[in-house]
Amino acid sequence: MDKTKLLLQKLIAKGMTLATAESCTGGLLGKKITDLSGSSAAYLGGVISYCNDVKQRILDVSEEDLDAFGAVSEPTAWQMAEGVRKLLGANLGVGITGIAGPNSDETNKPVGLVFIGVSNGQTILVREYHFLGDRAAVREHACAEAVDLLLGLVGK
Amino acid sequence: MDKTKLLLQKLIAKGMTLATAESCTGGLLGKKITDLSGSSAAYLGGVISYCNDVKQRILDVSEEDLDAFGAVSEPTAWQMAEGVRKLLGANLGVGITGIAGPNSDETNKPVGLVFIGVSNGQTILVREYHFLGDRAAVREHACAEAVDLLLGLVGK
Repeated sequence: MDKTKLLLQKLIAKGMTLATAESCTGGLLGKKITDLSGSSAAYLGGVISYCNDVKQRILDVSEEDLDAFGAVSEPTAWQMAEGVRKLLGANLGVGITGIAGPNSDETNKPVGLVFIGVSNGQTILVREYHFLGDRAAVREHACAEAVDLLLGLVGK
Repeated sequence: MDKTKLLLQKLIAKGMTLATAESCTGGLLGKKITDLSGSSAAYLGGVISYCNDVKQRILDVSEEDLDAFGAVSEPTAWQMAEGVRKLLGANLGVGITGIAGPNSDETNKPVGLVFIGVSNGQTILVREYHFLGDRAAVREHACAEAVDLLLGLVGK
């Protein structure tokens, strides 16, 4: 079964809600979830934080961390996840930040570097990925891994 | 040329920024914009307001209007557009709310009904659409029309 569909089914079965914070994927994860009819039973929505101001001001990512580590970093990913979870009042939050390419950002981090954070308000996980492929491939990989991390957090 | 690409080029040429508020499209418009590399020069991000609480609390859509007219309505569309424009501090905002199907919402409005609002802070336009086709088709149509409305607001 499609893993996004599996995630949605598990969320609904457990009465849990989800919020998404997307930077490099720019709405792709939200799109994938809402491709599924009935997703409104678990998916509250999210924030596409394509610029740092939105990360900081709306998702409450620390300005100091953004300055010190950059937008594509572990602290940014988990703060996006926890920030959107709190903002929307969801059980689970996910944050995705990365370099989809073809160009890097001002930090010259490598294309394909993506950090994904997930939070249920008690446990926060962050993982670092180095995806190969073009912009579209990096974005697809990031969404697939985000769904996997969320599945892990939802449990069996 | 692809109209989303044309919109991005015009925004960049005019030094204008864009924010999106998506309900029924659930991130698809953000995804389409950020499919384009370089989109961060004009696209600040957006809010996926898949539930009414997010529309009201984060995008400042009037609770009275939501109660009186429903989430899929003209007032909701323009308030989403103006709300996300203000929240993100963008020059332009767009709001999309509709019934993508296969089922209606609690109001029993017809599947395919979509309202799209655009705002530049001075002019607000809202249009009502009745799209044919399945869930995916309705969502695609909605994004295409949103881009058209934005192109009209950006000017030549």
